[in-house]
Amino acid sequence: MKYPREAIKRFTAVQILVFYYFLAIAFSFFLLNLPGVYKPGIEVKFIDSVFTAVSAVSVTGLTPISIGDTYTSFGIAMLMVVLQLGGIGVMSLGTFFWLMIKKRIGLRERQLMMADHNQYELAGIVQLIRQIVQLIFTIELVGGLIFTVYILNDFETFGEAFLNGLFMAVSATTNAGFSLDNASLQPYFNDYFIQICTMILIVLGAIGFPVLAEVRYYFSRNKRKNFRFSLFTKITTVTFGFLLVFGAVMIFILESMNSFKGMAWHEKVFTALFHSVSSRSAGLTTFDVTQFSNATDILISSLMFIGASPSSVGGGIRTTTLAIAVLFLISFARGQEVIHVFHRQIKIVDVFRSYAVILLAGLMVLIAVVVLLVTEPTLPAHALLFEITSAFGTCGMSLGITSELSITGKIIIMVLMFIGRVGLISFLFTLGGRTQKPHYHYPKERVIIG
Amino acid sequence: MKYPREAIKRFTAVQILVFYYFLAIAFSFFLLNLPGVYKPGIEVKFIDSVFTAVSAVSVTGLTPISIGDTYTSFGIAMLMVVLQLGGIGVMSLGTFFWLMIKKRIGLRERQLMMADHNQYELAGIVQLIRQIVQLIFTIELVGGLIFTVYILNDFETFGEAFLNGLFMAVSATTNAGFSLDNASLQPYFNDYFIQICTMILIVLGAIGFPVLAEVRYYFSRNKRKNFRFSLFTKITTVTFGFLLVFGAVMIFILESMNSFKGMAWHEKVFTALFHSVSSRSAGLTTFDVTQFSNATDILISSLMFIGASPSSVGGGIRTTTLAIAVLFLISFARGQEVIHVFHRQIKIVDVFRSYAVILLAGLMVLIAVVVLLVTEPTLPAHALLFEITSAFGTCGMSLGITSELSITGKIIIMVLMFIGRVGLISFLFTLGGRTQKPHYHYPKERVIIG
Ligand SMILES: [K+]
Ligand SMILES: [K+]
Repeated sequence: MKYPREAIKRFTAVQILVFYYFLAIAFSFFLLNLPGVYKPGIEVKFIDSVFTAVSAVSVTGLTPISIGDTYTSFGIAMLMVVLQLGGIGVMSLGTFFWLMIKKRIGLRERQLMMADHNQYELAGIVQLIRQIVQLIFTIELVGGLIFTVYILNDFETFGEAFLNGLFMAVSATTNAGFSLDNASLQPYFNDYFIQICTMILIVLGAIGFPVLAEVRYYFSRNKRKNFRFSLFTKITTVTFGFLLVFGAVMIFILESMNSFKGMAWHEKVFTALFHSVSSRSAGLTTFDVTQFSNATDILISSLMFIGASPSSVGGGIRTTTLAIAVLFLISFARGQEVIHVFHRQIKIVDVFRSYAVILLAGLMVLIAVVVLLVTEPTLPAHALLFEITSAFGTCGMSLGITSELSITGKIIIMVLMFIGRVGLISFLFTLGGRTQKPHYHYPKERVIIG
Repeated sequence: MKYPREAIKRFTAVQILVFYYFLAIAFSFFLLNLPGVYKPGIEVKFIDSVFTAVSAVSVTGLTPISIGDTYTSFGIAMLMVVLQLGGIGVMSLGTFFWLMIKKRIGLRERQLMMADHNQYELAGIVQLIRQIVQLIFTIELVGGLIFTVYILNDFETFGEAFLNGLFMAVSATTNAGFSLDNASLQPYFNDYFIQICTMILIVLGAIGFPVLAEVRYYFSRNKRKNFRFSLFTKITTVTFGFLLVFGAVMIFILESMNSFKGMAWHEKVFTALFHSVSSRSAGLTTFDVTQFSNATDILISSLMFIGASPSSVGGGIRTTTLAIAVLFLISFARGQEVIHVFHRQIKIVDVFRSYAVILLAGLMVLIAVVVLLVTEPTLPAHALLFEITSAFGTCGMSLGITSELSITGKIIIMVLMFIGRVGLISFLFTLGGRTQKPHYHYPKERVIIG
């Protein structure tokens, strides 16, 4: 009872988020079960209906049912509403909490922070959500119109083409990864225009709202000299870019002699690049991923585990967590006491947070693998790992086992999607490591490690 | 060139260790290829001969050849010599480096350390090795004689029984896990006397020399009130005990309805307990482990990855690394700024070391899995993970794929056995985090994590 204010703040942040998500799941379930949502004659099991609602709110995209075969046009419109609730919801809340923390530090380190006071930081939660909604809707609408015009000839009416084009744009921007075609984007395997547009939308959704806001602010001002991109923007953008290139190169190398055999070089390059981008958190595919070798499966699992930027539509441990871990490792190996990057010093508490996030996330995945191996004895270990990291990274790629999961298995995957999306781990620790001052100190003693 | 003394010290510690091991491997290869070592008519490939030498020096026990079918009595005697080189070698060097670090801290924190100055800390390297050799030889000889008497009736001569009994004791104490019988200890599935003796020897080897030394010191003194067990001893013993119980309970639960079906309760208990103990780093088995379910395979892989105590005959990330990680996680979740355990405070640098060890080890296992999936396309992912963690934990349990590995695969496993044994990761970081003081400080800036 000694730090009630801290305790309340902490409790409230987690509470708001979890409460928002439970509410959003319930509301999504309601929307997706309205009369006229399902096509005539279609029956969906209760567990699968809940699963789809959780998957949609967490913009993961894993689903035991076929979207195109199940939903009417009205149903698809409802699904798009749910994707907005999921994508914009967490992007807003995530950014808001982040600004709260930043502001609190600002009180202590005001001098240093002055240089970083970008306009969007001053906004309240309402203005912030307004900005995010505006930005995302603009991106989705522009993307949707481009898609609509491009695919117009494939459909009988403009309305039908627009529904499909908009869904493609919404699914890509919110990184939901749902697709009206059961084969995801595989029909567009040779359509690089669609692929490039989709990849751009995926990156815009997954790079994190603060990055988009800073970039927009940068281009809207004449006095650019006084503007400094935040450390967060620099770290997450570099890490994001590195992961895209690294993933693409690795998939290219691993599959060139396997499933890519016989492809033209540009097909190999695009297939590798697209699935690397998609593994950030979109989950769309242009290729039958079950044909990938086991080595590629493990690689993509690792990429999905890392996930997207914080304050984005993506999940996983997040790019910054990986970046801090790598920076720590390099500094530690060099024997440096402080971690410097982009002329800034990383705070110790952030190193600790990255440690906690990686430990907990790793442990969670390990436990999930063991439990699913028990509940799904017929499914191979690497496919389960793929499904688990896909859920935690809210990615939604699958080796095709989602519909084969038992009810227990589906519940576990739902919980992982929830945790991956909320980033519960990180929010639990957002205020960690700073609340309790000890009243006494024991003497320090070294322990042999490793 | 600013910290030459530190740099030299650091370089030397790693150098001594790596140099010792390369020398030991070369010498072992020489010993295991002397005339009269192989049975007549036996041909062993060069790669398999090197593999066995590395496996023996690192007391891992993985081997692509059958020990009993390949070596003569003289060969088995040579193998025992190699196991001593491996087991006692690293135990001595590991303890010595640990004392070096402790002494250096002692200069700074002499007052606090006085209470902990146990006798063995004052010993030099020569006296230390003498103590360790004395202790290990005593344990092995007592164990060997007990085994010899017990199995006497199964052999024609006392000499033959003694060779077998001594080998069993040496293999258990050094946690080598080699066995003259191709089925390991499976013939003793119902012999609980052999199993209990073997488990005791395994634990004595894997608990860490400092623990044994402190216990002996404790019992050799009358003034026990002034003696305090070191934090290391307390942490490693508690963690070791917890892992034994946790592993046994989990194996029992996971296999009761699978491979243990139809067994009596005491058979289930002993089989579960024995393989939990063995996964610390011994690798001996009383049961066909390929019959375990995939869930148990992943569980045992995790246990082998953790490994044994530092300064012991075992490998892995070590018990203390796990303990510090768990303590950190609990403290962090509670928002405590310092980590207290057993009335002592854990140093921040040790938390950082545990982070570095876990990150690097995890990354190494991940990379090894991906590479082996490429080089061994026909072998299942979970069996490769099992083999990899078995090598890194110098455990030596296998799902039977060692002899099926390609040459590249064998080389990777050899490297992992080497790293697991030397604890290269930890030694690289032993002096890490303390050498370079920065000449300037950048302003600190927070980053969104996870
Ligand atoms: K997704
Ligand atoms: K072993």
